Amino acid sequence: MFLKDTYINRRNLLKKRLGSGILLFMGNDECGMNYEDNTYHFRQDSTFLYFWGLSYAGLTAIINIDEDKEIIFGDELTIDQIVWMGTQPSLREKSESVGVRETQPHASIKNYLAKAVSKGQKIHYLPPYRAEHKLKLMDWLGVKPSRYEASVPFIREVVNQRNYKTGEEIFEIEKACNITADMHLAAIRETRIGMKEYEVAAIIEGVAYASGGRLSFPTIATINGQTLHNHYHGNTIGEGDMLLIDAGAETEMGYAGDMSSTIPAGKKFSTRQKEIYDIQVASHIAAVGALRPGVLFEDVYNLSAKVICEGMKSLGLMKGDSDEAVQAGAHAMFFQCGLGHMMGLDVHDMENLGEVWVGYDGRAKSPQFGRKSLRLGRKLEPGFVLTIEPGVYFIPELIDLWKSEKRFAGFINYNKLEAYRSFGGIRNEEDFLITETGSRRLGKKIPLTADEVEALR
Amino acid sequence: MFLKDTYINRRNLLKKRLGSGILLFMGNDECGMNYEDNTYHFRQDSTFLYFWGLSYAGLTAIINIDEDKEIIFGDELTIDQIVWMGTQPSLREKSESVGVRETQPHASIKNYLAKAVSKGQKIHYLPPYRAEHKLKLMDWLGVKPSRYEASVPFIREVVNQRNYKTGEEIFEIEKACNITADMHLAAIRETRIGMKEYEVAAIIEGVAYASGGRLSFPTIATINGQTLHNHYHGNTIGEGDMLLIDAGAETEMGYAGDMSSTIPAGKKFSTRQKEIYDIQVASHIAAVGALRPGVLFEDVYNLSAKVICEGMKSLGLMKGDSDEAVQAGAHAMFFQCGLGHMMGLDVHDMENLGEVWVGYDGRAKSPQFGRKSLRLGRKLEPGFVLTIEPGVYFIPELIDLWKSEKRFAGFINYNKLEAYRSFGGIRNEEDFLITETGSRRLGKKIPLTADEVEALR
Repeated sequence: MFLKDTYINRRNLLKKRLGSGILLFMGNDECGMNYEDNTYHFRQDSTFLYFWGLSYAGLTAIINIDEDKEIIFGDELTIDQIVWMGTQPSLREKSESVGVRETQPHASIKNYLAKAVSKGQKIHYLPPYRAEHKLKLMDWLGVKPSRYEASVPFIREVVNQRNYKTGEEIFEIEKACNITADMHLAAIRETRIGMKEYEVAAIIEGVAYASGGRLSFPTIATINGQTLHNHYHGNTIGEGDMLLIDAGAETEMGYAGDMSSTIPAGKKFSTRQKEIYDIQVASHIAAVGALRPGVLFEDVYNLSAKVICEGMKSLGLMKGDSDEAVQAGAHAMFFQCGLGHMMGLDVHDMENLGEVWVGYDGRAKSPQFGRKSLRLGRKLEPGFVLTIEPGVYFIPELIDLWKSEKRFAGFINYNKLEAYRSFGGIRNEEDFLITETGSRRLGKKIPLTADEVEALR
Repeated sequence: MFLKDTYINRRNLLKKRLGSGILLFMGNDECGMNYEDNTYHFRQDSTFLYFWGLSYAGLTAIINIDEDKEIIFGDELTIDQIVWMGTQPSLREKSESVGVRETQPHASIKNYLAKAVSKGQKIHYLPPYRAEHKLKLMDWLGVKPSRYEASVPFIREVVNQRNYKTGEEIFEIEKACNITADMHLAAIRETRIGMKEYEVAAIIEGVAYASGGRLSFPTIATINGQTLHNHYHGNTIGEGDMLLIDAGAETEMGYAGDMSSTIPAGKKFSTRQKEIYDIQVASHIAAVGALRPGVLFEDVYNLSAKVICEGMKSLGLMKGDSDEAVQAGAHAMFFQCGLGHMMGLDVHDMENLGEVWVGYDGRAKSPQFGRKSLRLGRKLEPGFVLTIEPGVYFIPELIDLWKSEKRFAGFINYNKLEAYRSFGGIRNEEDFLITETGSRRLGKKIPLTADEVEALR
């Protein structure tokens, strides 16, 4: 946890900016895997963590701006819980550690909110992303699960704070990035032909756990890199394969790292693999070079997409004007993912609050295939932390679909493309802080160029 | 997955035994950790796995006994899902692989059930243990989250099948037990003074993941063994500590292993540690020796508790008649957990269906402190798979509470007990199959006696 004042200041700013009403913060509960008491590891809601710091299940907090009150609702442990789960500080002690003086039993929240509603107070809540949140909104406020109306002013003020990382947050994020780099370095060094993907995943995850942290998201370690979020780990790594790794650590405080690397199964990339790899790296380096305050991130995306188009033209897989191709969306034959996303207490920071607020400052996102997966498009500002992760993917189903529709036939050479249909996919990813003058890479360096990768194999 | 016929036969038996109505099987959905798309690893509901074999999110299945129909409700992948998640067999192909011919889009289930209700058909469902299940029951059947009425006949017939493990299930369970044993052996060999508990946990979990499986429950690796379910891993292992490990693997098919071991931080137990350790082992060995068909497991528990009382008397910590002490519940000062539980597709098998059905065949459980944590009390039968895990724990809060109440003052020497208040806790656990004539330990042997443990340190 940060010092008490961090949380007090964050809440005070929120109160000041929102001005009135009741802000409702639903902490997360335990979630049973296959029965109620066999739970996944507990993960507190990130906005709850940000403003209240407490990583325990069963808590709800409110800021009653109208009455200038802050209350944490929760329950003390019973003797049975102490026997099974051990002692903990009392709810009062926990609350005091984050500067909150009033606590109430969890069962009181329903009455408290009902009274507030009857007094005409507005209850602001954030979008529910777990079924348990929906049950609570229904129980406490009579909101039907499919009909909730999250508070846009509340969302915007949370985003306005969480998007700008402070020094103490950057310190935590860099810790996560260093562990993340170690996870990749271990896998890059230890992967061998004949290993199962899950053996590589075990190496990666072992590094995270041995650091005292957890994973910031489920590990990708796959010879089928063309599948963007592939969590299957059952394949054997064969001669000639590439392994795409996308993995990150989460520190004990909940801050994320997120990096990707792509390595040859053997000691070196094949000539054809290296040709595509170099295009991905050129796109990556161009994007990193463009990072600075004031630049529109969607323009950085366009630049990275253009570099991929130019590369594909050099191999004869694309044709025509690259700017026009990017405008039209033809690059998304190869580059279906976005260029990057905000990162903080969530690996895709505040994804549950809506990318349109977090990444676009309220501007509507493009519906174009490929571009619609760009989670960040707004003007960059100092304090933003984001990932850079262009990719080049050959997806057989997409090739077949677009070819049958003759889609972008003026930009894509489908006949040449056929030879690449089982090529796979390549992605490299690093994390950056936007500074006053440009950007700074966070965490230890992991290999980026083909030479750097091969030097570790 | 097992062969198609396994699932067909299981469902046929269920149909025959229940005779009428509609059986509703709610598969599990993905669960977001900190936002909707950052999910925990997917775990299918075990009863769904048992009867339908398919480990995918977003499925619901029904057996309409009255009309002799089986239907799996789910949705095919969109092109966007293929790009992000990769290809999968179609729902039809998946369903055929487990002998089901009819599939319908997931959205149809609500109408299907409404029609069945209007025809007067009885809808049987199992107890919901995730918030998502409660939302579905509300949406589909209008059942309020706090007012569901799970079907006792359905529960009993599921329990009647799942409690008796077949040869192919025992093969899978033994696979899980072998990986589980390797997890313990690695930790027993590699733990050193000065390591953090999370470093040991990382070793244990790495073995599970490198085998292609997962964990069957969150790992316990703690110097505070007196806390029965302690998932905190932040302490440093110091000179003179003992480390209690309770960890298990889950195979890809979902079957569990579950073992515990307790080791000295250094090469040997201290004299005082060994005295208590030997009592725990004696209790363990006595319980294992009593396993055979026809024996009431609650009697095995009484035996194991009596051995602990006898041991405590030999150290002067207890007094009086041991049988009377166990009857009264005085042993629960040291032995608060149960002796063991059923194990299968869940590590506490079918805990969500109710221990009274799974472990007591409908007989009411004792409310006595300690004894009430005994998850299994029924007569043993061939095919049951269970754990044996007596423990000896010194819990300061419990000592203080009972001492202040003068509870069991005729059995417990509180004055002598004071010297043990920071002793910690000891547990050893192995897994057994009840055979026609006795029992068989499942999986590789892990050290049990103090000599066996010290030989690996």
